[in-house]
Amino acid sequence: METISCNIPVDVKVKVPSLVGLDKKQESTIVNVNGVEIGGSEVVIIAGPCAVESKEQIFETARSVVNDGAKILRGGAYKPRSSPYSFQGMEEEGLKLLREISQETGLPIVTEVMDTRQVGLVAEYADLVQVGSRNMQNFPLLKEVGMCGKPVMLKRGMMATIEEFLNAAEYILHHGNDQVILCERGLRTFETSTRNTLDLSAVPMLKNLTHLPVVVDPSHGTGHRWMVGPMAKAAVAVGADGIMMEVHYKPEIALCDGHQSLTPDLFNELMIDLRKVAGAVGRTIS
Amino acid sequence: METISCNIPVDVKVKVPSLVGLDKKQESTIVNVNGVEIGGSEVVIIAGPCAVESKEQIFETARSVVNDGAKILRGGAYKPRSSPYSFQGMEEEGLKLLREISQETGLPIVTEVMDTRQVGLVAEYADLVQVGSRNMQNFPLLKEVGMCGKPVMLKRGMMATIEEFLNAAEYILHHGNDQVILCERGLRTFETSTRNTLDLSAVPMLKNLTHLPVVVDPSHGTGHRWMVGPMAKAAVAVGADGIMMEVHYKPEIALCDGHQSLTPDLFNELMIDLRKVAGAVGRTIS
Amino acid sequence: METISCNIPVDVKVKVPSLVGLDKKQESTIVNVNGVEIGGSEVVIIAGPCAVESKEQIFETARSVVNDGAKILRGGAYKPRSSPYSFQGMEEEGLKLLREISQETGLPIVTEVMDTRQVGLVAEYADLVQVGSRNMQNFPLLKEVGMCGKPVMLKRGMMATIEEFLNAAEYILHHGNDQVILCERGLRTFETSTRNTLDLSAVPMLKNLTHLPVVVDPSHGTGHRWMVGPMAKAAVAVGADGIMMEVHYKPEIALCDGHQSLTPDLFNELMIDLRKVAGAVGRTIS
Amino acid sequence: METISCNIPVDVKVKVPSLVGLDKKQESTIVNVNGVEIGGSEVVIIAGPCAVESKEQIFETARSVVNDGAKILRGGAYKPRSSPYSFQGMEEEGLKLLREISQETGLPIVTEVMDTRQVGLVAEYADLVQVGSRNMQNFPLLKEVGMCGKPVMLKRGMMATIEEFLNAAEYILHHGNDQVILCERGLRTFETSTRNTLDLSAVPMLKNLTHLPVVVDPSHGTGHRWMVGPMAKAAVAVGADGIMMEVHYKPEIALCDGHQSLTPDLFNELMIDLRKVAGAVGRTIS
Repeated sequence: METISCNIPVDVKVKVPSLVGLDKKQESTIVNVNGVEIGGSEVVIIAGPCAVESKEQIFETARSVVNDGAKILRGGAYKPRSSPYSFQGMEEEGLKLLREISQETGLPIVTEVMDTRQVGLVAEYADLVQVGSRNMQNFPLLKEVGMCGKPVMLKRGMMATIEEFLNAAEYILHHGNDQVILCERGLRTFETSTRNTLDLSAVPMLKNLTHLPVVVDPSHGTGHRWMVGPMAKAAVAVGADGIMMEVHYKPEIALCDGHQSLTPDLFNELMIDLRKVAGAVGRTIS
Repeated sequence: METISCNIPVDVKVKVPSLVGLDKKQESTIVNVNGVEIGGSEVVIIAGPCAVESKEQIFETARSVVNDGAKILRGGAYKPRSSPYSFQGMEEEGLKLLREISQETGLPIVTEVMDTRQVGLVAEYADLVQVGSRNMQNFPLLKEVGMCGKPVMLKRGMMATIEEFLNAAEYILHHGNDQVILCERGLRTFETSTRNTLDLSAVPMLKNLTHLPVVVDPSHGTGHRWMVGPMAKAAVAVGADGIMMEVHYKPEIALCDGHQSLTPDLFNELMIDLRKVAGAVGRTIS
Repeated sequence: METISCNIPVDVKVKVPSLVGLDKKQESTIVNVNGVEIGGSEVVIIAGPCAVESKEQIFETARSVVNDGAKILRGGAYKPRSSPYSFQGMEEEGLKLLREISQETGLPIVTEVMDTRQVGLVAEYADLVQVGSRNMQNFPLLKEVGMCGKPVMLKRGMMATIEEFLNAAEYILHHGNDQVILCERGLRTFETSTRNTLDLSAVPMLKNLTHLPVVVDPSHGTGHRWMVGPMAKAAVAVGADGIMMEVHYKPEIALCDGHQSLTPDLFNELMIDLRKVAGAVGRTIS
Repeated sequence: METISCNIPVDVKVKVPSLVGLDKKQESTIVNVNGVEIGGSEVVIIAGPCAVESKEQIFETARSVVNDGAKILRGGAYKPRSSPYSFQGMEEEGLKLLREISQETGLPIVTEVMDTRQVGLVAEYADLVQVGSRNMQNFPLLKEVGMCGKPVMLKRGMMATIEEFLNAAEYILHHGNDQVILCERGLRTFETSTRNTLDLSAVPMLKNLTHLPVVVDPSHGTGHRWMVGPMAKAAVAVGADGIMMEVHYKPEIALCDGHQSLTPDLFNELMIDLRKVAGAVGRTIS
């Protein structure tokens, strides 16, 4: 039976489901992604391209970001694209490339799964299985990743309330998987100068309602390369447990999201700044 | 290759994909749902409960709505629920009950599919396969229903722009299925007195951009039983090709959406009113 | 002291202030605009240009709309424009032209007031004083029009909830003026194909919460000339007490909002359609 | 004539008006508020109660915040309240109390003006005249504060785009006043767990489009006392030139916004944290 957490701040009107709430479990959950812990004192940096596009692209990008301190490599093999005519991803070939460069660099891999029929396959290759924002309320998929045996990163739907977000996570825990990371990646609002409106207040809100770690994605949240830096710093300052950023070795030739991908040089500079902000709020970035 | 329709009104900034657009096909598509035509001069009424809950419930409701002029029966067997602890549907047993009452009443059946693995099964039972608003950008599901051999009703995501809606439909057509009905069911906005904000302007907008028929769902669009009538009349006046409404033989004991379901008596009265409005705009409701 | 109306539908969570609510006054308020009654069985048509631009423009437009059945003439003399470099209106000279053509045609005048210092002047010339959507929560202005001695048309802010809208109206009644007409004119949402998202569900919602008449403005609500007709028909079907539309004798040379203004010919045709819809819902348009 | 700035990042679609844009003036504007500079390397802290409620309240609060490093005192004398039955402010008596405590503490005063008729009076007492979010497009008020001879803080409307915000500021500059501070205070979205959705991405966006300084108000932006700290730190990290926070000597008896006001103790602790974050991003808080 669902029970409602009572430990929430008195002025917040959110019904928190029982497994993700703080009634039954007060201590923070630390999710272990093949040796990398998310939810502790270190702010974990996740970096990589939007999509795996070629061996050269993913290998060069991975080698670059690992040098600068990234702890997990991102890269999509199955891509949710608004148009059927856009690049849809390299599929299993992309997963294999991710595995290969993971072995070389030691970086665990996070990649998206979109289809219940592919959860087994993706979970074989990935260290962290991502459910994208468009699938946040794809309930059969949530159930399936709840049984997949790998940690899950659940991205907030761009139209999802905090309560719906927590209920989506509850589906995963309810199906047996308590290794869940929440990821804020921007809301859809009336504002059009940015791709989305990154809701950084979701971080302290979630940290007060759930024991699960919270990551922020300023790349999708803003849609502008030059905005990723300031918003990443703000995300560290506000208390995020991790930052996920798109980095591409040559953004100008990227098949998707090039305009919001950092170059390796920009990523290198940003990491220096992020370490300073982390230090100022009592966190570390290694 | 994607091409962009040029027949759209000059003041509208929507990139319309090629198969759903009006460049290649100017005449309206009439979707044939097991003998019931949607997209012609008749406004088709789709009615039934949110979910199939029991034999008595779905049989009694179906017998009532067919008498009042409904042409298609709705009823969910797989339900997308925000919480894992809510009623999730009767699944295949529900599909069988829908089939049984369909044979008795002659009403074709529309029911939702949520999982790529269930498309085959649902398409066996359903006359019209529904993709719900939370799955409007579930691209593997769109591809699968594109190959299912049955007409599809695609509901607009509550955060989806008109352009995204048309692109989601394009996925279905691109995978071989041109029997697609679009359904407006309300946007998520800041307003909280209604469940959603039903965007009736989407009807003339869509009718100007695509040849596909457009249906309106005032039950989900408003969330209030007493509001379904006025909004259904407005939907007919604005040019909808069909109206989908929740009707329950006993809304007070419904397992979901009882507060927005019409009683059989209210549905009966409303049908009389809808016929008058249809007549005023040159349409019919039989 | 504020009291809260209890007559509202049980499933609506809106706190309705006392003077606009249905506790103290159940019968519908009929607002008398210099002889034209709004709030009775007739649906009142308000038409005219966005702004008064010249004697020829306002005279020709007024003569045209009165012939087709418009009952009140609209036209702005003070214009709220996003940019300081846009046409700001003819000010008092515009008011004088409105008065002059009102005497010729017999049409009462509605025009907007933006500044507390101009309420006296505008109320001298206008039969119905309009508070625009950007000023819906301009509280000093609400107080001032509450004391101006003329009926007031209050437009809903594009970001205002129903509750805030009713509270804004309450300010006017609380300052002594019970001749208030509410006007729905579209919400700001994420959708960009229309100027705003016209919330027709606001009409039955407001009619259930307040005794004040409700008018709909499909011109600003959609921003497209070709969409005004369908949405005006829907507004009549949903129960609006009046429709306010922009009509310009030569939209192609209009100084503002030309793209959303009807031509006299389109207005003439639409009036015929609107009378049919009004008849279908038990209302009249003379 | 309006000209459009060309120095904006290529991926941003905002038409920037000429006086606030970076074409004519590249160097940052530093606004001088009676000796306190906003827009330089120091992040300026503005603190005080939502409204002036009594001599004891404003005096005790002011004495407390000045000790902790606040540089400007906030306090409303004219309050824009949704309901006519809520506390509307102490009006001129409130302005006098602000002036009195300003002389004692040396803190310049920021206070809101709502009515064109009061601009002269408010500008006499205030060092910085505030235009509230509900009045961001009150154009007569913008013109009047453009001629008032005092610096102006313009708060972003909760439904205002960046482009509309910049155009509202342009009104003030166009009427002769180039001492304008922009303040982000949260957008209205579908999310209800917070009062608004504080759009921190507006800070880097605005800093890239205009030379005007940008301040953030995390109190109105979140509506929760416990959220002000994390969001203030994020605002400093993202590059804000100032932070405006509500502090009340006894929030539990506040006449408005008590739930979002910091206690003096919380403010004291937060200032220590904010100085660390400022240092990490190369700024100072004295």
